[in-house]
Amino acid sequence: MSNVLPLKKKEITFEQDIDEISALFKEDLVSVNTIILDKLDSNVPLVQEVAKYLILSGGKRLRPLLTVSSFHLINNGGLQEENSINHIGLAAAVEFIHTATLLHDDVIDESKQRRGKPTANEKWKNKTSVLVGDFLFSRAFQLMTKYGNSATLKILADTSVTISEGEVLELANDKNLEINEDLYFDVVNAKTASLFSAACQVGSISANGTKAEINALKSFGTNFGMTFQLIDDAIDYSSNQKIIGKNIGDDFKEGKITLPIILAFGRSNDKEKRFWNRTISKLKQELGDFDNALEIINKYQCIEDTITRAKHFSNVAIDSIDIFKESKFKEKLASLVSTSLSRIY
Amino acid sequence: MSNVLPLKKKEITFEQDIDEISALFKEDLVSVNTIILDKLDSNVPLVQEVAKYLILSGGKRLRPLLTVSSFHLINNGGLQEENSINHIGLAAAVEFIHTATLLHDDVIDESKQRRGKPTANEKWKNKTSVLVGDFLFSRAFQLMTKYGNSATLKILADTSVTISEGEVLELANDKNLEINEDLYFDVVNAKTASLFSAACQVGSISANGTKAEINALKSFGTNFGMTFQLIDDAIDYSSNQKIIGKNIGDDFKEGKITLPIILAFGRSNDKEKRFWNRTISKLKQELGDFDNALEIINKYQCIEDTITRAKHFSNVAIDSIDIFKESKFKEKLASLVSTSLSRIY
Repeated sequence: MSNVLPLKKKEITFEQDIDEISALFKEDLVSVNTIILDKLDSNVPLVQEVAKYLILSGGKRLRPLLTVSSFHLINNGGLQEENSINHIGLAAAVEFIHTATLLHDDVIDESKQRRGKPTANEKWKNKTSVLVGDFLFSRAFQLMTKYGNSATLKILADTSVTISEGEVLELANDKNLEINEDLYFDVVNAKTASLFSAACQVGSISANGTKAEINALKSFGTNFGMTFQLIDDAIDYSSNQKIIGKNIGDDFKEGKITLPIILAFGRSNDKEKRFWNRTISKLKQELGDFDNALEIINKYQCIEDTITRAKHFSNVAIDSIDIFKESKFKEKLASLVSTSLSRIY
Repeated sequence: MSNVLPLKKKEITFEQDIDEISALFKEDLVSVNTIILDKLDSNVPLVQEVAKYLILSGGKRLRPLLTVSSFHLINNGGLQEENSINHIGLAAAVEFIHTATLLHDDVIDESKQRRGKPTANEKWKNKTSVLVGDFLFSRAFQLMTKYGNSATLKILADTSVTISEGEVLELANDKNLEINEDLYFDVVNAKTASLFSAACQVGSISANGTKAEINALKSFGTNFGMTFQLIDDAIDYSSNQKIIGKNIGDDFKEGKITLPIILAFGRSNDKEKRFWNRTISKLKQELGDFDNALEIINKYQCIEDTITRAKHFSNVAIDSIDIFKESKFKEKLASLVSTSLSRIY
């Protein structure tokens, strides 16, 4: 690779930040894990095997963490209602919805690797991934039914509709280099930000937050989700191989159109546009194409501008929790958004 | 085709029976259709197009009919609570779950035709079918959330888990000629009967049925579902081309293992077993194989025995609604089960 971004020293990495915030809610996260394990159980051995493969493969559990954090931000360390584990059950439901979409996503994208391991569709074929995704999705609804109230049920059901619509919107614009940023933001909002937001909302509602508090965390989740995904998209064109669980260049190999590509295509000259048409729209790639892609992307500062867009959403996210009084929970949530930006360096 | 089953004259066909019972609940079924149309709406045009293609393609709407019939069997024509349309919304939810599973089923089975038209996966590719299936599934949960109570939500969420587990169980035993009847019944119970049963249960609960009434209709649905699917499987090896919406021989072409095949394989001699291994397990089929399959199936009376099994379930179904006093609703539900048996002639 020809363009190496400098590896800046940061006080704390995103992963360290996740570890620190996870330590604050250790007991809750252990409980979430217990419910997840309990609900992976199935009389059909293949269901268990495939579901466990993905859900126990060392993901960050970022979405359950948001549910639990939102719950405690509102409670501010106060005692919770005796025996109330609604936020725990809902956090597990959110993780199940997330995992179900990953399974179906990998089928749609024909992905071969996730988190450095073969994808489930690669290991067990597409059919199994589709069906086990359906199983996890159904399990999520069982959990919601058990631990949710009418408000949280509505949020999670609406979010599931939004996610699937976002997936189809993306598929309908597959390989179309001329989509604009707005459509791309719509897709990211639907596919990623909506579940971040739902995770925060169901945590807030379980803590009996006020309308203003729930709305604050709803906005926090949405904007953190946008930040997270834009940085994810930028990382795919960075050259820092140390980023955990990411395989640099995968989006390019799959011809996936993300913000760096949208910006680069818009700014490209005719010769460069032909390059994008061949490599992305027609997916006819040759040796050296990824380096060439990086060159064009860097020539037009598309990574910097993607990060600038991400920074905008991170600012909105951090400001949205201003209404809460200072606490270690608030501080850590804001810090998480900030360090998520630095994942790329 | 060499073996033509006689076309017996029946007083009334299954389709006529569906029409008659549908006429009893015309207003409710119009309302179900209105909610279905309303909920097919999406900002993403492709979602709408694909969802409408399948859900408006002239299915029998058998499951919503069961919800509505169960509701009225309990109410027995009595006035319903003012403005209560819970059973309508739940009937639509059941149809959405059914349609979502059809979309994913056709992807899993690589089916090319359904109800005499190209399948959605054939028309728009597998990816779209997977995602629009997810959309319909999510829409079902939105409807459940809106029109359900904790009991109906639990039933439909549990049923969705059961369906997906049944699908995986079937896939895990794909092309395995040595599966026994019990496993086959487990699959049919999970894939078909559980949703028939759920449809009846949510209708009964919406009508505030007693525990005994709800359980009676739960059993009715399960056993009607078993009857329906076994006859469906038998039809695939019948020679009556007039059966609406069925393409005779499709199961054989796809190498799908259903009861006629399980019975035939168990009774086959070595030469015949080799035939099944080649045509079903290895899916290497030649011209004339279907006729040969029919010959073996008829030699061992496998269709008759499949019908005998179906008859067993139909008896249980009809007896299970004994607890209800006589009414036109009860009479029509029992008749529906009886005529479903005669679909094959």
